[in-house]
Amino acid sequence: MHNYKLTIAYDGTEYGGWQVQDNAESIQQLIQNALRTVLRHEVNVVGSGRTDAGVHALGQVAHFKTHGELDLFRIFHSLNSLLPRDIRILQIEPVPLAFHAQRSAIKKTYYYHLSLNPVQDPFRRLYSFHVHEKIDLDLLASASKLFVGTHDFTSFANEAHKGAAAKDAVRTMLRLDPVLENGGLRLELEANGFLYKMVRNIVGTILEVAAKKRPIEDIPKIFAAKDRRQAGQAAPSHGLFLIKVNYK
Amino acid sequence: MHNYKLTIAYDGTEYGGWQVQDNAESIQQLIQNALRTVLRHEVNVVGSGRTDAGVHALGQVAHFKTHGELDLFRIFHSLNSLLPRDIRILQIEPVPLAFHAQRSAIKKTYYYHLSLNPVQDPFRRLYSFHVHEKIDLDLLASASKLFVGTHDFTSFANEAHKGAAAKDAVRTMLRLDPVLENGGLRLELEANGFLYKMVRNIVGTILEVAAKKRPIEDIPKIFAAKDRRQAGQAAPSHGLFLIKVNYK
Repeated sequence: MHNYKLTIAYDGTEYGGWQVQDNAESIQQLIQNALRTVLRHEVNVVGSGRTDAGVHALGQVAHFKTHGELDLFRIFHSLNSLLPRDIRILQIEPVPLAFHAQRSAIKKTYYYHLSLNPVQDPFRRLYSFHVHEKIDLDLLASASKLFVGTHDFTSFANEAHKGAAAKDAVRTMLRLDPVLENGGLRLELEANGFLYKMVRNIVGTILEVAAKKRPIEDIPKIFAAKDRRQAGQAAPSHGLFLIKVNYK
Repeated sequence: MHNYKLTIAYDGTEYGGWQVQDNAESIQQLIQNALRTVLRHEVNVVGSGRTDAGVHALGQVAHFKTHGELDLFRIFHSLNSLLPRDIRILQIEPVPLAFHAQRSAIKKTYYYHLSLNPVQDPFRRLYSFHVHEKIDLDLLASASKLFVGTHDFTSFANEAHKGAAAKDAVRTMLRLDPVLENGGLRLELEANGFLYKMVRNIVGTILEVAAKKRPIEDIPKIFAAKDRRQAGQAAPSHGLFLIKVNYK
């Protein structure tokens, strides 16, 4: 048995998300289909985590196991020629059998892009959230800082499916930095793990504070409540990029 | 009578080009429709030049004339709310009656983006041409220089429509600079005017030289021949951006 790690970039605009599902095309399914064509048998591609419909990735990681050693140069080019051009395999490499794309991950990095210009650059419309409200950048920076550190993020997590709230919602946010970029800014988030919809719920809450729709003092109260309904509305998926997954 | 200048950005992916045509949606038509809704009468929007299907713009310029003075703040926001998000009016300003978006232009700047990585960034797939051949960057730079200066560009111009070859094909290329960028490079072209498909024909020819498919000595011969069939194949439209149009 051999274990292989894939590093994948995708434009999520046209897809129903990473995970295989009945009602929309998924990135996981397309990669499994391409691997089936190349390897001539079914494989199960395990991602580092799901990304929702419309979420993008520059460095999603997945693994799959197969009998027999692969000609990686050939497989790499075959996969990219079989996949649509909005999904690209960036790297394929052998890893120990114990490597698991989700369970072995020790850190993830997400960027969330915001367009703050009155008129949005048309080339960013699918890749950043156009905020129409006036944003106070100092408040945005102060609110961002309140998420750094080890917290119970229950209030910022959706149930992945009915009744499936995470048992342990304690995560450590290593950094959450606003970085100015052309036409707006991005929020860079690094944590030892993220719960379902956690980035979008955090960004939505920060934006409500920065637009002065609610006081910054609400943030510790939301953490304490351990109740998803207390946090802000989730920011839309198309501003979100999974940038990197780190392993030991 | 009042004359207004529009500065426009658009993602050309979904359109049949700038110019109104029967068989595809055009950017000119959509802007005319939006203006008709706002002004309640027909207007003729005159662009600085056509861009082909799939070509993008960061700074296309157009003008239109209307009776009555306009509330520019209101018009600006109405147009952007009526137009699809891949077409954005960046500026609207009053100009002298004599201003003509095409005839008053004294200089234009185009960028042509090339992806040179073995695997193309999926976020650049609609905005840069993925070159699979090995490109010699020194040859590319040397070939680019041969286009700078005043030349008869007949061999690099297509007929805009049957029999419509430009009468005077002499243009001055002020600069043609390759600039490295993430994953590839862009060619920056500035001239006092461009003939139909001239940028794409020039880029296609430079690429044939840089990929060593033909010798660099061909370029002066192509100029001398004054025959479109001598030049290289046009580079595809989706790598091309109209960046700026300058006026006196």
